[in-house]
Amino acid sequence: MKIAVLGAGNGGQALAAYLSMKGFSVSLYNRSKKRISNIIKTRTIRLEGEVQGAFEVDFATTDISEAIKGRHLIMVVVPAFAHIDIAKKVAPHLEDGQVIVLNPGRTGGAIEFHNILREYGVDKDITVAEAQTFMFASRLTNPGVVRIFKIKNAVPVSALPAKKNSVLEDTLLKAMPEFEIVSNVIYTSFNNIGAVFHPAVLLLNAARIESSAGKFEFYLEGITPSVARVLEKIDSERCMVMEALGEEPMTAKDWLNYAYDVQGENLYEAIHNNPGYQGIMAPPSIANRYILEDVPMSLVPISSFGKMLGIETPTIDSIVQIASVMMNKDFWIRGRTVETLGLSGKNVDEIRRYVLEGIM
Amino acid sequence: MKIAVLGAGNGGQALAAYLSMKGFSVSLYNRSKKRISNIIKTRTIRLEGEVQGAFEVDFATTDISEAIKGRHLIMVVVPAFAHIDIAKKVAPHLEDGQVIVLNPGRTGGAIEFHNILREYGVDKDITVAEAQTFMFASRLTNPGVVRIFKIKNAVPVSALPAKKNSVLEDTLLKAMPEFEIVSNVIYTSFNNIGAVFHPAVLLLNAARIESSAGKFEFYLEGITPSVARVLEKIDSERCMVMEALGEEPMTAKDWLNYAYDVQGENLYEAIHNNPGYQGIMAPPSIANRYILEDVPMSLVPISSFGKMLGIETPTIDSIVQIASVMMNKDFWIRGRTVETLGLSGKNVDEIRRYVLEGIM
Repeated sequence: MKIAVLGAGNGGQALAAYLSMKGFSVSLYNRSKKRISNIIKTRTIRLEGEVQGAFEVDFATTDISEAIKGRHLIMVVVPAFAHIDIAKKVAPHLEDGQVIVLNPGRTGGAIEFHNILREYGVDKDITVAEAQTFMFASRLTNPGVVRIFKIKNAVPVSALPAKKNSVLEDTLLKAMPEFEIVSNVIYTSFNNIGAVFHPAVLLLNAARIESSAGKFEFYLEGITPSVARVLEKIDSERCMVMEALGEEPMTAKDWLNYAYDVQGENLYEAIHNNPGYQGIMAPPSIANRYILEDVPMSLVPISSFGKMLGIETPTIDSIVQIASVMMNKDFWIRGRTVETLGLSGKNVDEIRRYVLEGIM
Repeated sequence: MKIAVLGAGNGGQALAAYLSMKGFSVSLYNRSKKRISNIIKTRTIRLEGEVQGAFEVDFATTDISEAIKGRHLIMVVVPAFAHIDIAKKVAPHLEDGQVIVLNPGRTGGAIEFHNILREYGVDKDITVAEAQTFMFASRLTNPGVVRIFKIKNAVPVSALPAKKNSVLEDTLLKAMPEFEIVSNVIYTSFNNIGAVFHPAVLLLNAARIESSAGKFEFYLEGITPSVARVLEKIDSERCMVMEALGEEPMTAKDWLNYAYDVQGENLYEAIHNNPGYQGIMAPPSIANRYILEDVPMSLVPISSFGKMLGIETPTIDSIVQIASVMMNKDFWIRGRTVETLGLSGKNVDEIRRYVLEGIM
């Protein structure tokens, strides 16, 4: 199986190296050359942490058509705010039978991607799927070296519509059996743990990040009991919206057990019991995807679905508001909403029919 | 002139010592004995910083009737959430001609205090006034030692109703000419700078406070550019509510110039240009009056007046929401509102007539 990895941040590099290690032919695409100029030359990515060694990709390129040509599986590993751009770029070059997986989709990623392909008149047999989170906890430690702190036990994934999930079995799961196919993209979109863990922790540590350039452990020092209480409230608002959409939510605490085998009396304890979080430092600036991606692509759509379904999300809304003020960007306007996803005015049955069968 | 100081936190102790230094007879009351047991014995409070020396009060006591008996001026220096309790306690013991000054009132302090005295059937000639902020930036450094980092140039004060402001000239201003009489309590209540500076800075540093027990400079390290942008937005929402009440607001940046003679291109710069903030450390815990007082007694009433007048305060509301979640207390219910202040449904003219003339 030939695989393309689109996006060469720490996640994309880690995934490309990991899949190469497993013996697959991997192409690696990045929009800007700067980040991959060395990989274009050496084809080599070094991993440390849970997987160690130097692994060779097939090639790296800034030409997306070259990257996806003849590839069975296309792994998209870019911040969710770049999904639209990737969708527009791949649309003219897609081939019958290709499977596109957003790693992860955040909230509404597969729906948005699918909409763009339709808008661009793609008539090939393409499967679009989204993962609930990224498979690794990883960071770039040095140029060309990625540390995989932890490979998650399992990451849920679903195609849109879910009736195409069987396609994932013969492609994605052959490459990475750690993925677990779930009911539909409501599951992957609303069990969005990044929405719970990322923006609030960043905001409630904003001054420390700015005054120390992030020199503290993001999860272990950044999540204190009072911060964890805010995360639990965000989590409970998220779960209520998901329940209203007819799917059984997994709480963040249960997810830590599912993904990392850790337990705790409450979310604070569970986070602090996770060795997978040790050594993960805060970002050096608040202008980071933990806000720029997770606020508009996770919290805003969760709030927007909540509003449409009559579920109040005051804590989520507060984080969106403060993030908007801090970054001087109106994330309410920039974010995914039921309107931008084309689902405005739909009821739960209609939404479910769409994600299950593809019928609008 | 005989003066009572009610409340012996760092502010009350600093004020009692300062007024003693100026030659006034000062009684010092505190509810719990623990905090003043040493002062009861020695009558001595040591000041350091801008005022230095050991100063003797007349007496310290936990008996509020003894503290206020025969005192012309009663300086209330307790967190605003204790104003109701103080009002109820002094009500039976008040004497004709006494002047009560809330240092500060936060938002709606004088109105609330006045309501309680009326409710308790006080028929003496009492003047209730509120200051816009506390006169000193001060902290307890050691038991019995208060550091006055900075005496403000001027602190606005007004009686309720404002037609009694002349009473303040012959009492409060004789004791402390740094006070400046302003138009009415809308000015002092809504130019509430603590509302702008305290809760948001605490929240946006919550993890650092909890993980370091507040071992960083509150203003100088706790207010980074992104935090200052949030403060500016809170400030602008506050100013809009104040304008709707027919008073000219003073921005937080202008206030720093008024109170401390500092300037800057923006709020971040002005704060960082203030030598008066140097050395003021963060509180050791988030269970601090910067949240417990300033959220319910400052942000909630500003938001509540805003709602009544059709002014949106989304950033203020977000801070209230996150503080409520963090502290596991619903500050919307615990806080001062137009309802609890007895002003629900009043229009601006009626509110202004009340604060100016005392006519409901």
